[in-house]
Amino acid sequence: MTTAPGRPRAIDAEDRLARAAVEIYGAEGWAGLSIGSVAKRARMGKSSLYLRWSTKGELLADAFAIFGAHVEDVDTGRIRSDLIALSMKLVDAFDGPAGLANLRLQVDAATVPELREVERRMRETQVAAAREIVKRGIARGEVPSNTPVGLLLNAVCGGVVNYANTRPPERRPLDRGEAESFCVRLVDLVLRGLAASEPV
Amino acid sequence: MTTAPGRPRAIDAEDRLARAAVEIYGAEGWAGLSIGSVAKRARMGKSSLYLRWSTKGELLADAFAIFGAHVEDVDTGRIRSDLIALSMKLVDAFDGPAGLANLRLQVDAATVPELREVERRMRETQVAAAREIVKRGIARGEVPSNTPVGLLLNAVCGGVVNYANTRPPERRPLDRGEAESFCVRLVDLVLRGLAASEPV
Repeated sequence: MTTAPGRPRAIDAEDRLARAAVEIYGAEGWAGLSIGSVAKRARMGKSSLYLRWSTKGELLADAFAIFGAHVEDVDTGRIRSDLIALSMKLVDAFDGPAGLANLRLQVDAATVPELREVERRMRETQVAAAREIVKRGIARGEVPSNTPVGLLLNAVCGGVVNYANTRPPERRPLDRGEAESFCVRLVDLVLRGLAASEPV
Repeated sequence: MTTAPGRPRAIDAEDRLARAAVEIYGAEGWAGLSIGSVAKRARMGKSSLYLRWSTKGELLADAFAIFGAHVEDVDTGRIRSDLIALSMKLVDAFDGPAGLANLRLQVDAATVPELREVERRMRETQVAAAREIVKRGIARGEVPSNTPVGLLLNAVCGGVVNYANTRPPERRPLDRGEAESFCVRLVDLVLRGLAASEPV
């Protein structure tokens, strides 16, 4: 989401374009996406888009970069609140039209050559940022130095993505308060499990 | 998967058809799936398929039912080993060509009317079976009666699905031993977290 509650951002042309691209891709897939369809939905001239992007793959990659989860922005100073903030970014990323686009990208990465690199870059950026959260927690002594980083992150990120993805269409969009309460309980469950297994 | 290691099953015509349908749907999507393409891949006469299925939606629903995770078969007598067995069923479901089909079904449920019901039935059957695992654990006194069932299952199932789905294509199929070790560590992490929060 470009506009998190409490942090309104000016919806400029770039945001509008990114949202249009992600929404069209989410709803209609790779075949339904074109520079022309994005220009039309964003109410902009097609020629101005062609000045910047020569293919729809490049446009979609930039759209995901603008509209993505931006895990790298999370740094609250504590691992618990970092993991909760990370979880809420995933809720936003996997709920609504962007959610469909994120899911679709996972499928298309395996079958559409142009999207393989887009998916890889996004995944690697997000995984690296998430690992940094845990590493900072280790450096601050909040979790043991031998914390199984991948296991911890799979439990937290996977738990949240599953919570968002298995929601039936008629129960969307997610209630943000409910989602936040889920994220807090999930992070606490996982951190308690960690503390119980390896004394700090 | 129809053939779990150590439990070979005769690959009969029905399995062959189900596998062909799920693989074609996974690789080529709803648009690429047809009764004819399934018959061809399974090396069977198209007319015999038409005797049984009048639409490709019905064929795919049956294929998922045969080829699905079959969580309802899990009952080892202990919650820990039940959750590990459930996790391994999810690894099998989300790895390989069936994995792509499962992911695709989540996307298409939101956009292809014929698949909405297929996805809903599968999801509800699996969720109900997974909840039974936890309920039996509560009845046996292995976990507290106020165990947050949804939270526990999201952490375990989501953690496993995330582990399988975020694997880059060049590192597939998953190593089954590695996957099982991951599932054991995940289930133990979550169960320890649960035990640490609510004394039994």
